[in-house]
Amino acid sequence: MPRELTIGDLHDLARGAALLGTGGGGDLYVGRLMVESAIADGGRVELLALEEVPDSGLIIPTAMMGAPTVLVEKIPSGDEAVRSLQTLERHLGRKAFATMPIECGGINSTMPLVVGARLGLPVVDADGMGRAFPELQMETFHVYGVSGTPMVITNEYGDSTIVNARDNAMMEWLARGVAVRMGGAAYIAEYSMDGETAKRVSIPGTLTLGIEIGRCLREARERHDDPFGALIEMLKRTPYSNGRILFEGKVTDVLRRTTDGFVRGNATLESSSGSVLGLEFQNEHLVARVDGEVRAIVPDLICVLEAETAESITTEQIRYGQRVKVMGISTPGIMRTPEALAVFGPAGFGLDEEWKPVETLGA
Amino acid sequence: MPRELTIGDLHDLARGAALLGTGGGGDLYVGRLMVESAIADGGRVELLALEEVPDSGLIIPTAMMGAPTVLVEKIPSGDEAVRSLQTLERHLGRKAFATMPIECGGINSTMPLVVGARLGLPVVDADGMGRAFPELQMETFHVYGVSGTPMVITNEYGDSTIVNARDNAMMEWLARGVAVRMGGAAYIAEYSMDGETAKRVSIPGTLTLGIEIGRCLREARERHDDPFGALIEMLKRTPYSNGRILFEGKVTDVLRRTTDGFVRGNATLESSSGSVLGLEFQNEHLVARVDGEVRAIVPDLICVLEAETAESITTEQIRYGQRVKVMGISTPGIMRTPEALAVFGPAGFGLDEEWKPVETLGA
Repeated sequence: MPRELTIGDLHDLARGAALLGTGGGGDLYVGRLMVESAIADGGRVELLALEEVPDSGLIIPTAMMGAPTVLVEKIPSGDEAVRSLQTLERHLGRKAFATMPIECGGINSTMPLVVGARLGLPVVDADGMGRAFPELQMETFHVYGVSGTPMVITNEYGDSTIVNARDNAMMEWLARGVAVRMGGAAYIAEYSMDGETAKRVSIPGTLTLGIEIGRCLREARERHDDPFGALIEMLKRTPYSNGRILFEGKVTDVLRRTTDGFVRGNATLESSSGSVLGLEFQNEHLVARVDGEVRAIVPDLICVLEAETAESITTEQIRYGQRVKVMGISTPGIMRTPEALAVFGPAGFGLDEEWKPVETLGA
Repeated sequence: MPRELTIGDLHDLARGAALLGTGGGGDLYVGRLMVESAIADGGRVELLALEEVPDSGLIIPTAMMGAPTVLVEKIPSGDEAVRSLQTLERHLGRKAFATMPIECGGINSTMPLVVGARLGLPVVDADGMGRAFPELQMETFHVYGVSGTPMVITNEYGDSTIVNARDNAMMEWLARGVAVRMGGAAYIAEYSMDGETAKRVSIPGTLTLGIEIGRCLREARERHDDPFGALIEMLKRTPYSNGRILFEGKVTDVLRRTTDGFVRGNATLESSSGSVLGLEFQNEHLVARVDGEVRAIVPDLICVLEAETAESITTEQIRYGQRVKVMGISTPGIMRTPEALAVFGPAGFGLDEEWKPVETLGA
């Protein structure tokens, strides 16, 4: 049974998907407003569980790609990704049965909701990252053998580009070049696949997970309860079962530059006891080191949260003086296989450290 | 009546198209070998005069785009532009009646000959530049209202990109980004149009002109005659009627860098009497100043030729110590209208000088 999302669900999703964004994924405020606008215009957002999709149904995932720093100033109307999907339908000569997120963290959790509401398509409750990642081949879709191309990239002026690439790394390389020339943020339809394939290669239930994380944080705040404790308890009942606070302290230094279509940089935090946390990011947080020792590393989640409210702080918002708690959260098994780690583990980002599960690292 | 090109014609075309390349347009040696290989495989190269094309026949021009410096090391097989045309046919849902050069200077005079020979399509004896220019909107096709998109960009690995852009400047911007990410040289099909349109917006007879220039230089050398004098006489009977020697001297300095997908730079030459010629180029020579005074400027041709043989020297070959003659050659009226000069006159290249016909400049 499809489930229709309410405006309340969207507020919870915005909060939960920001956490799954692990610092990246773009501004959820903009994302939520786009969906609300589509609903105000008479659209409905219907979530469909992965197992409800017919095996032969064509799924066309939709998303934004680019640097989150750009999106803050170059705000989408919501129609861009609709055109991406329609252009890909024409290129394939087939109509989509549903759309789906490629990424359930950040604004890309809401982009397919806009597309679904505008076109009357259901949205599959699953994704290919289980969080946010900066590059298009960093997908379980890719890890488990789906071609990302043909893909479509559009912008707000109606320019579009259809990419066919020999592999998904080349797709990322070419598409990133186009996105940069479109102004650093663009809108895509890619990894089209049938329902049978989607059931094999996707991380199920991640939109619902985002809503549940957001609801958990909201309800804890409403109860004047500790939102961190509530979240850690709630996560135990999900495939992201192991959440822990890695560090508590103050942001003392941030280096950030928007280059080659990404936000790259690092941040330093100090605790009251003089411990130092170093974070490295490429759109998303990649590694957290406390006094030089790795405490969490991709693909496990590294979440920088405001110390009282547990509101997420993105890599473009993080700044000197913020008081934060930094959480590490374990990821589902499908994201931790050797094939998956080869793509979006430490080596996928040029980091020297070997991957170790966050639940085995430090105290 | 289509006219079949011989191997001898190709040698003449290589020499003549190099001159029309005005320093750019890529290495004709590679271009000629590709056509000879297509003929050796049983292909035929058939030239069709512009007026012989049916009004409703679909013409799909084909070309290389990128920096000529790259092409010297990243040599095409000849199949790349064939795939570009075929991909555009599929996207349009129509078959091409013929292909055509977008540019009759440099390797792009031969690229459509390869495509024609491989696919059994005639090649229209006309182009959209009447010489070589570095950017895709620098076309009489564009000046007189034809959309360059949908266009296809391919590389030697079978990657392809279909661009649809709001205008031809955006097409150039996006396509250049893709070409750079494909390694600095790529293969395109663009400005598809019917025969009726082609007759209105093209520069007719430019492949034949390239062959005639090459033949003129060859025959003068065979006669031990002055090739420069012979060329100037021959040009009088063409729409490029006013050829003159602007300077004779030695190359004393060259600054050249390959950046953003172009070769940019300048060269300095000194005559025996101490005069100094300054050349600026972006793939092609843009302006020639003798002792600071403009003597020829785009779109008129500025050709750097070996002082004895009149063999063309490209902007990637020019180097200290070469003894050369530099010619200025007038261009046809269709390239000198106010609309044309706005696109590929001095202002199109950011040059401050106003355009003046080469035949009115200096002595």
